[in-house]
Amino acid sequence: MSRLIIFDTTLRDGEQSPGASMTREEKVRIARQLEKMRVDVIEAGFAAASPGDFEAIRSIAGSIRESTVCSLARANEKDIERAGEAIAPAARKRIHTFIATSPIHMEKKLCMTPEQVLEQAVKAIGWARRHTDDVEFSAEDAGRSDLDFLCRIFDAVIQAGATTLNVPDTVGYTLPQTFAETICRLIERVPNADRVIWSVHCHNDLGLAVANSLSAVLAGARQVECTINGLGERAGNASLEEVVMAVRTRADIFMLDSNIDATQIVPASKLVSQITGYPVQPNKAIVGANAFAHEAGIHQDGVLKHRETYEIMRAEDVGWSQNKLVLGKHSGRNAFKSRLAELGIVLESEESLNAAFARFKTLADKKHEIFDEDLQALISDETLAPAAEHYRLNYSRVASETGETPCAQMILSVGGHERKAEANGSGPVDAAFKAIEQIARSNAQLLLYSVNAITTGTDAQGEVTVRLTRNGRVVNGQGADTDIVIASAKAYLNALNKLHSCQDKLDPQKGGV
Amino acid sequence: MSRLIIFDTTLRDGEQSPGASMTREEKVRIARQLEKMRVDVIEAGFAAASPGDFEAIRSIAGSIRESTVCSLARANEKDIERAGEAIAPAARKRIHTFIATSPIHMEKKLCMTPEQVLEQAVKAIGWARRHTDDVEFSAEDAGRSDLDFLCRIFDAVIQAGATTLNVPDTVGYTLPQTFAETICRLIERVPNADRVIWSVHCHNDLGLAVANSLSAVLAGARQVECTINGLGERAGNASLEEVVMAVRTRADIFMLDSNIDATQIVPASKLVSQITGYPVQPNKAIVGANAFAHEAGIHQDGVLKHRETYEIMRAEDVGWSQNKLVLGKHSGRNAFKSRLAELGIVLESEESLNAAFARFKTLADKKHEIFDEDLQALISDETLAPAAEHYRLNYSRVASETGETPCAQMILSVGGHERKAEANGSGPVDAAFKAIEQIARSNAQLLLYSVNAITTGTDAQGEVTVRLTRNGRVVNGQGADTDIVIASAKAYLNALNKLHSCQDKLDPQKGGV
Repeated sequence: MSRLIIFDTTLRDGEQSPGASMTREEKVRIARQLEKMRVDVIEAGFAAASPGDFEAIRSIAGSIRESTVCSLARANEKDIERAGEAIAPAARKRIHTFIATSPIHMEKKLCMTPEQVLEQAVKAIGWARRHTDDVEFSAEDAGRSDLDFLCRIFDAVIQAGATTLNVPDTVGYTLPQTFAETICRLIERVPNADRVIWSVHCHNDLGLAVANSLSAVLAGARQVECTINGLGERAGNASLEEVVMAVRTRADIFMLDSNIDATQIVPASKLVSQITGYPVQPNKAIVGANAFAHEAGIHQDGVLKHRETYEIMRAEDVGWSQNKLVLGKHSGRNAFKSRLAELGIVLESEESLNAAFARFKTLADKKHEIFDEDLQALISDETLAPAAEHYRLNYSRVASETGETPCAQMILSVGGHERKAEANGSGPVDAAFKAIEQIARSNAQLLLYSVNAITTGTDAQGEVTVRLTRNGRVVNGQGADTDIVIASAKAYLNALNKLHSCQDKLDPQKGGV
Repeated sequence: MSRLIIFDTTLRDGEQSPGASMTREEKVRIARQLEKMRVDVIEAGFAAASPGDFEAIRSIAGSIRESTVCSLARANEKDIERAGEAIAPAARKRIHTFIATSPIHMEKKLCMTPEQVLEQAVKAIGWARRHTDDVEFSAEDAGRSDLDFLCRIFDAVIQAGATTLNVPDTVGYTLPQTFAETICRLIERVPNADRVIWSVHCHNDLGLAVANSLSAVLAGARQVECTINGLGERAGNASLEEVVMAVRTRADIFMLDSNIDATQIVPASKLVSQITGYPVQPNKAIVGANAFAHEAGIHQDGVLKHRETYEIMRAEDVGWSQNKLVLGKHSGRNAFKSRLAELGIVLESEESLNAAFARFKTLADKKHEIFDEDLQALISDETLAPAAEHYRLNYSRVASETGETPCAQMILSVGGHERKAEANGSGPVDAAFKAIEQIARSNAQLLLYSVNAITTGTDAQGEVTVRLTRNGRVVNGQGADTDIVIASAKAYLNALNKLHSCQDKLDPQKGGV
């Protein structure tokens, strides 16, 4: 059976979602999960975008052995050098360079003629080939490009040594039928088309990213660029999980399959949602909480009578399993460590393991049953290295009573010094944030506050995401606790710590395909 | 230009999402918004499912003048009589009857031969035509039905007087290309196919509901069944907003349009999300919070240089507008009432208006700026009629302090009698729920707890959804307040009130297409 290459760009295009920026440690965790899922190519970032992006790609290149690690680069020598340097430690490496080919982009954005664009693309492939034999070329906004020009530029980059040719629908404008026709005609007309892999990268503005990708596969494309949960700018990219499961479920039509271990899909979805603070709606295909739930009486009856009547996939095939009660307050350090290993979580040092175990014990005192999700949250709490914890919560007291103004007292450690504050607010969370701000005076603006119960039951931990912005930088803070006010304070402090550190991008010039 | 009929089934198939059940009042509010959006057909429910469903359809039929009001009915005389009775008050009315036509469904679920199924379908059309000339017939699981049999049954129901023929992909198994071919062949082969409207109803299990619907439209279908936010069983139905905007944005390909007033799309999305407690993920096409947000530097640059480079739709065309600061603490009753009217909210009595205005004043004391979203939440809080408020919150006091167990004291009014309780918990919300349960002893199980900040800013109101289940019944409670613990307690009590009342379905036998 022919093979479909899965190119995941959660860490690059996905991260371009407003507020979805991730730290280096978070990116490495996601990359490890992608490798475990057997993704073929991991686009780890855009090396020239910022020192932080560069370091994240380099860390991933150093950690991943099975998947190809890729960096995006504009079609200029400086970008490509940075990309080559970032991916150097990887066992398998790719450079993905791009330039816009639509009349509107060439004229309005690049201010270049088509001839100049073609020449630049050919040069870019040459620069990239110095670093690796695996070079991908993208024609940005191909969906609105002239087909003759596309054929010419693709012919030229094949001759220059590109091995994968990517056709993006940058603005999510195409329809499945027309997109399939474009791919068909390109493969027919471009000389030596059979010597390269044809790839597509679709955006979801009209809700058609997956359908467009699949129609391209039927037309001959053999790589799909996609993201976990369909994360990405605006309405996002094609969802990895939908592409993979559509191809697998309808192997009778596609006559091919991917390497993906689908049982890792739901864990990957939860991890990405947790780290980015982007929730997955319950009615999302494959990874939504209801994707495999049947409500209506008639359907339930059908399911009972014969499983196939309403099920085309099995929940367990994509990694849905019953919440497992794995640990309790009497569980020991070894049980804790080995369960983390089963979840694919490797703590770098003995100290982080000890700190995580201490937090686990505190949690187990408050919550009877500790589920996998609780462990994931606990570790997320822990991933911000203690060194980066400029602000830490030492003590809090909040009270709210009908008829009284809610108030909060907080004691924080700020760069090692203890600071106290007390504030009123419109609710206990507001009061806690105001008390923190009396100390921090961050000038940050709150963009988003959201809470999800990690597991069910009234003693569930709440996981709070706080998104702050200051001077154009956007960070997400996370905090988990059985006490929602504490979880909120932790999330707020986590966001302040991220603003305080230099882990985020300095350069706003990022790439888009 | 030819016209595409938009058939919205948010109130029927959408309501079949686990826990998305709505009260009669909530359904009427959504139906009014659908009418305002100029939906052609509103499927208001499944009359025979329960007395509650029947009453909801009848109320909608009495309230809606512009859209056709439709009830689902299985292909039996009793169901169809109930449907006819429910829609009787409507200005324009439709009965939608269905029977399964796939071998697996006929054999395993219906235990009928194909001949028996065909005969039953023809009879059903006859029964329906006694109530209205507008009769729709659905061949359930058409995607896996034998084409010859489909042609025979469609031919027979056209002769019997069906005016719309619906082809559902009940299990979300088809691909755009194959589904288009099915529709094409049906229209070619069924005699008198041009005398009826062909319709499709697609499920999203592989993420292809919208693409399948659109491919059917290109093949000749002229009605699409869809839901707001793609709500519906499992991974949901085709999203109304994506279908409408894809057809409109690519009018060059489709050569047709719908009647929909797209500026009502975002308000409809928010209303449905608020009432059902189903969040919309930020990267959802059209109605997601990020659908029109641009993050990457390169793209931003492109947008600034020339709007069309990255925008294929304008946010304002689908009803996104800046949050408007509409009211403050000095706003009077008239300003409040007229803003509600602009939002399409009509309070039935002077008492409800007075109660809502009182709540508005209390909120304005705590929160400086009152946005449209705050007003929507305020009204949602108010829609449960006071008569149905068996449980009401009179007083609450919660405190949590580092090192201490959080505790809550609550005073509730239960059926008019004051009751007190005090409880500890793993956090203030848990303590509050436990105190409430000391009084209510409901035996209900908590399925979901979620919080959304309604607007940004630290003094934003939190809107809490609590989903409870007891003896197979599932209800959603909502509560909004600037104090998250109060909002949580209100939501919990709202859910208990719904469990206490008889507004929900008594009969689990519901319909599925």
